[in-house]
Amino acid sequence: MKRCLLLFAGTVSIGLSAAALAQGAKPEEEIRYRQSALNVMGRSFGTLWAMSQGKMAFNAQLAADSAAIVEMMSKLPWNSFGPGTDKGAPTKADAKIWSEMDKFKDKADKMKTEVGKLAQAARSGDEAAIKAATGDTGKACKSCHDDYRLKEFRQ
Amino acid sequence: MKRCLLLFAGTVSIGLSAAALAQGAKPEEEIRYRQSALNVMGRSFGTLWAMSQGKMAFNAQLAADSAAIVEMMSKLPWNSFGPGTDKGAPTKADAKIWSEMDKFKDKADKMKTEVGKLAQAARSGDEAAIKAATGDTGKACKSCHDDYRLKEFRQ
Repeated sequence: MKRCLLLFAGTVSIGLSAAALAQGAKPEEEIRYRQSALNVMGRSFGTLWAMSQGKMAFNAQLAADSAAIVEMMSKLPWNSFGPGTDKGAPTKADAKIWSEMDKFKDKADKMKTEVGKLAQAARSGDEAAIKAATGDTGKACKSCHDDYRLKEFRQ
Repeated sequence: MKRCLLLFAGTVSIGLSAAALAQGAKPEEEIRYRQSALNVMGRSFGTLWAMSQGKMAFNAQLAADSAAIVEMMSKLPWNSFGPGTDKGAPTKADAKIWSEMDKFKDKADKMKTEVGKLAQAARSGDEAAIKAATGDTGKACKSCHDDYRLKEFRQ
């Protein structure tokens, strides 16, 4: 199991290295990439959210699978908010992200921490723990969206 | 290790169930989702490709991490090519996909098979095997793109 966790940790850590590789990417590619990772994350989180709200029957395997996607995706977008990626394609990322990067990264880190707990709960199959961790993750998502995600796309 | 592989298999299999859940999604959401999964997949595959072509120093951990992302993403897009998702947002998906769905799915399955081999090679850390499997996966990607991906977006 230790090896398994290491494998998982390795899988999930890739975000940083894989994203770092793309620092030569064009701003529009970075914007597209971070949107893509968050889009994939959002769909799987939506499944967990629906279960936590009783809008979908709880399914432990689906919860674990969804949380694994959320966890992997949660590592990927952040290096694509680098210098010069504040514009270049339609984006809902508030421009103040780039003047408040430390605060923004703190919010991202908070979310990743909650997602880590969610994924752990999901692997355990404990319905109550999964639902609670889904709620905590949702709050962390919302906190960042409230501050840094615009309601409409900007150029 | 067996448990680990099971965990991985579970992680990867989610694609189908998670995607199935979204069958009530709007066509534009489905188009966006499949593009997002393929975009995330493409970036990590690009890392593997660069290593296989000697354009980037080989790094076993990065290869394994990248292949894990590719493997997870390779499961996600296909249920988002359902009926009614041939249009609704700008897409490079050739409309003939929906009249040749069996052939299209065969190409997707072929790709998933090659990606499975790639991920297995990447977990082993065997540089030659990883590079060979990257080439085979690239051919499977290209085969489908040649037949079913347009060069420009269409509405």
